[in-house]
Amino acid sequence: MSSFQPQDAEFESRVRESFARQPIMQLIGANLQRVEAGAVDILLPYREDLAQQNGYLHAGILTTVADSACGYAAYTLMPANADVLIVEFKMDLLRPAMSERFVAEARVVKAGATLTVARCDVYGWTGEQAKMVATMLATLIRK
Amino acid sequence: MSSFQPQDAEFESRVRESFARQPIMQLIGANLQRVEAGAVDILLPYREDLAQQNGYLHAGILTTVADSACGYAAYTLMPANADVLIVEFKMDLLRPAMSERFVAEARVVKAGATLTVARCDVYGWTGEQAKMVATMLATLIRK
Amino acid sequence: MSSFQPQDAEFESRVRESFARQPIMQLIGANLQRVEAGAVDILLPYREDLAQQNGYLHAGILTTVADSACGYAAYTLMPANADVLIVEFKMDLLRPAMSERFVAEARVVKAGATLTVARCDVYGWTGEQAKMVATMLATLIRK
Amino acid sequence: MSSFQPQDAEFESRVRESFARQPIMQLIGANLQRVEAGAVDILLPYREDLAQQNGYLHAGILTTVADSACGYAAYTLMPANADVLIVEFKMDLLRPAMSERFVAEARVVKAGATLTVARCDVYGWTGEQAKMVATMLATLIRK
Repeated sequence: MSSFQPQDAEFESRVRESFARQPIMQLIGANLQRVEAGAVDILLPYREDLAQQNGYLHAGILTTVADSACGYAAYTLMPANADVLIVEFKMDLLRPAMSERFVAEARVVKAGATLTVARCDVYGWTGEQAKMVATMLATLIRK
Repeated sequence: MSSFQPQDAEFESRVRESFARQPIMQLIGANLQRVEAGAVDILLPYREDLAQQNGYLHAGILTTVADSACGYAAYTLMPANADVLIVEFKMDLLRPAMSERFVAEARVVKAGATLTVARCDVYGWTGEQAKMVATMLATLIRK
Repeated sequence: MSSFQPQDAEFESRVRESFARQPIMQLIGANLQRVEAGAVDILLPYREDLAQQNGYLHAGILTTVADSACGYAAYTLMPANADVLIVEFKMDLLRPAMSERFVAEARVVKAGATLTVARCDVYGWTGEQAKMVATMLATLIRK
Repeated sequence: MSSFQPQDAEFESRVRESFARQPIMQLIGANLQRVEAGAVDILLPYREDLAQQNGYLHAGILTTVADSACGYAAYTLMPANADVLIVEFKMDLLRPAMSERFVAEARVVKAGATLTVARCDVYGWTGEQAKMVATMLATLIRK
């Protein structure tokens, strides 16, 4: 990963304000953690009502936090008046999502004038033990 | 799409029972509709608490229903004692998800002994007007 | 798939001229077939020197024709002075690519002002028998 | 990336022998470089006959080397009698592929009993300058 130069010095407050306006993040109990230029982490504690039929966190909910993490990682590098939309992503589910909490770590791979590519590794944590449970590769567009 | 022969005549009741045991489907208000050999549709009415910061349904929530639809479409073709897990998927967000209700229409493309490939087109409906808002291409594994 | 209105009535000749200027298409022996608004088919006869270690056509070569088919399908809908670049794609290999010839059938799913999404199903033909051997889902950008 | 324990001490010679039996690698002029447990690099010098209409290396040819690099990275971790097939992959084209030579660096992300997930970053080199031109995320199956 390269180091990135933000175009707007206020990027962190922009990201935190936007995150606070995402009702879905409240519904599932996700918390914004790290916000740096090109890097955003989101924490999601496990909850039974987010699970599929085997008790694992549903892949779509892991995707929800990974998608938002990628979107905000891209957003950190945009000018103050820009918006960002997800174009598409691939998500690989590597292990059953059966941990106490999950951290989606998104990092920008390439920031272009129109399109940004980001990766997000999602780790499942139980106590002090982490394992990667999923990884996303996403394309985002500046609007 | 081909026509598929189910291995278990009771596939519809197996799918409906499993869906009823997915807490996340209750949380977001998703309803199972069509269940045929190789084809499953899931309905999700729009709700404000499922939205992102612009009021569009969050891409991760569209993914949640598309993923479940693909999983159950694969499940319709499996023997009675089998289970199915999603391996990976790609999701393309074609238009802003700003409709009254969404229908995820999953269809099996190829059913193999170990792996199944399925597509899911997600339509946004407002009144009697539908437009495709997203499409998924997914790989699933029999366990 | 919807029906599409081309912006440039001369799209077919633009596509055929561009295809003729792709050296890689000559190298592998690919032939442009159908060119319609939003739809392009490319034929590739099997050749031993395009195979991997088991004698199957290499997945990357199937990808080469599917990618060009998607690119030209998008190109049919663009104005005369536009260019198109592939942004990303997912390719699923459904069956071993061990047929006499392959036809990549690309169809535009959504044509936007900046981005176009296309699918391409690749069929392997032996005599008069066809089976789907791969499917691609791709994003393209107008330049 | 984790460190991996190979199941077969002779993995490097197995990989090099298999690579030598891929006619397509000879056709396009690809060379196998690094072969370590969970890691394979393939070098491809630019050639005009591998280009698309703008003179860039065709995305499908970058895919051909990235796909083989991922396949062999997975293969390094398999027992002596196993074979590996690619199931699917996503490829992102980050920059125009207009360099003197390309190196596809594949690394295993997760090695499972049946499925393996690998990434491949492709760098374009001109003189001593490198930039990432593409990245792949792939699923492979042991046969």
